Amino acid sequence: MTAAGEGPLALICGGGTLPVAVADAVIRGGRRVVLFPIRGWADPALVGTYPHCWLAVAQVGRFLHHARAEGCRDVAFIGTAVRPPFRMLRVDWEMLKLLPRVWRIYRGGDDHLLSGVLRIFEDRGFRVVGAHEVAPQILMPAGQVGSRGPTPQDLADIERGLGLLRAIGPYDVGQAAVVAVHHVLAVEAAEGTDSMLARVAELRARGRIPTPTGSGVLVKAPKPGQDRRIDLPTIGPRTVTEAARAGLAGIAIVAGEAIIAEPHAVAAAADKEKVFVYGIGKPP
Amino acid sequence: MTAAGEGPLALICGGGTLPVAVADAVIRGGRRVVLFPIRGWADPALVGTYPHCWLAVAQVGRFLHHARAEGCRDVAFIGTAVRPPFRMLRVDWEMLKLLPRVWRIYRGGDDHLLSGVLRIFEDRGFRVVGAHEVAPQILMPAGQVGSRGPTPQDLADIERGLGLLRAIGPYDVGQAAVVAVHHVLAVEAAEGTDSMLARVAELRARGRIPTPTGSGVLVKAPKPGQDRRIDLPTIGPRTVTEAARAGLAGIAIVAGEAIIAEPHAVAAAADKEKVFVYGIGKPP
Repeated sequence: MTAAGEGPLALICGGGTLPVAVADAVIRGGRRVVLFPIRGWADPALVGTYPHCWLAVAQVGRFLHHARAEGCRDVAFIGTAVRPPFRMLRVDWEMLKLLPRVWRIYRGGDDHLLSGVLRIFEDRGFRVVGAHEVAPQILMPAGQVGSRGPTPQDLADIERGLGLLRAIGPYDVGQAAVVAVHHVLAVEAAEGTDSMLARVAELRARGRIPTPTGSGVLVKAPKPGQDRRIDLPTIGPRTVTEAARAGLAGIAIVAGEAIIAEPHAVAAAADKEKVFVYGIGKPP
Repeated sequence: MTAAGEGPLALICGGGTLPVAVADAVIRGGRRVVLFPIRGWADPALVGTYPHCWLAVAQVGRFLHHARAEGCRDVAFIGTAVRPPFRMLRVDWEMLKLLPRVWRIYRGGDDHLLSGVLRIFEDRGFRVVGAHEVAPQILMPAGQVGSRGPTPQDLADIERGLGLLRAIGPYDVGQAAVVAVHHVLAVEAAEGTDSMLARVAELRARGRIPTPTGSGVLVKAPKPGQDRRIDLPTIGPRTVTEAARAGLAGIAIVAGEAIIAEPHAVAAAADKEKVFVYGIGKPP
């Protein structure tokens, strides 16, 4: 994957520090990287020191032109993105031809949106690779990150959360739930994980949660059938602070099928906030 | 059920207008009713004109004493309740003996909580009946309430919402979801329906919902295996205004297995807000 013979990697970059973590790992492996940061999402201070070309959301034509000029054949997507309001899309000529197709994609769930986007690139001769395939360093490891681990009760809550996420998988809904002492407190859909954790914090402040502060687990897992190349669940230091603010005991996320941003900062935040961060290993 | 020979009905009353709707229906059927309004939930102005005895949450002993003195053998629960913070419970002697059991109940999900509460009354010689069994007038009818009905797209969204609710049933989670043009926008857990609708309204205001205003359905259904005597899903005029504020096309709720409070006000609100309210009939 990191062989220089495959040409430079085009890296379409959303927000956060993951894009440069991936870029650094690929460069260390001896491969050239061209960043395509998305305006409004990517951090100019982080991406500015790499070869790069800014894009607006949906500027497919501009991407194709520059990526081909750089000799890129592989493209990966990494970093935080928010589903943009349709009016924010900057439509270029290439995109205009795609609009009827994009509109159909856009009306579906997230899975549908993402796999539709991937096909657009593949139809134009690019190979879409997972950021974790070119930079496996970003994958969540099995076991605990930081000095705490789950209790047997937490492990039971994790099991229940995973079962719930499997059950809702066919409905193309969120990738996370909060379970506290067998009680399902929240299920994520369009609002995203941070917003779901804020809701749990508010419910707790209003006395609506029967279990004490320091109980409950945020469980995250990839959706069944999800395209792993573009939408793996991700945690970072902010997830840890939000989970602590929601009064949870910890966070559990499927190891090897999820991304951890800034693992050292995650471990430090976990210890400071007295929560666990746990990579769920595959059953033997 | 309404035979006077069975003695008066003890009606434990939460908030809203449903308790007096049930009381009026039972009285019209020729049976005496004794109201046991819960302090902080029931509306004193509404319950004050009926024979009544105020209770604090968890005053089981006080209920048993007065209900027996009135000759009640049947007890029904009706009206809105919020899961109270544990510190708010007023514990009397009868309750004190039950505390270890209540604590176990309290740690479970809502189903567990409610069926545990029912058993406490049954063990003491009462028969717990559903409010809709003694006052079937409060059940949601099949078909539309108000002048609007669902479109074929809305019917498809309703089908998807019902499937999702069936899938999460075993996890003792909420009874409602919002689906818009195939896209699951929200799943209810501990926050309750009103709070979930407020979330959808906020997501829409932030441009995070891809489908236009006036699309999407709030779907409510009883949980599989839920004890229908005490926790049927309920809609009222406020549900209609909240659904309209969330930009939805309408509300669908399983007919005959859900309660509609103030049906005339619901129909008026639905027409004013231009949303549909639809009772999902049983499949033939």
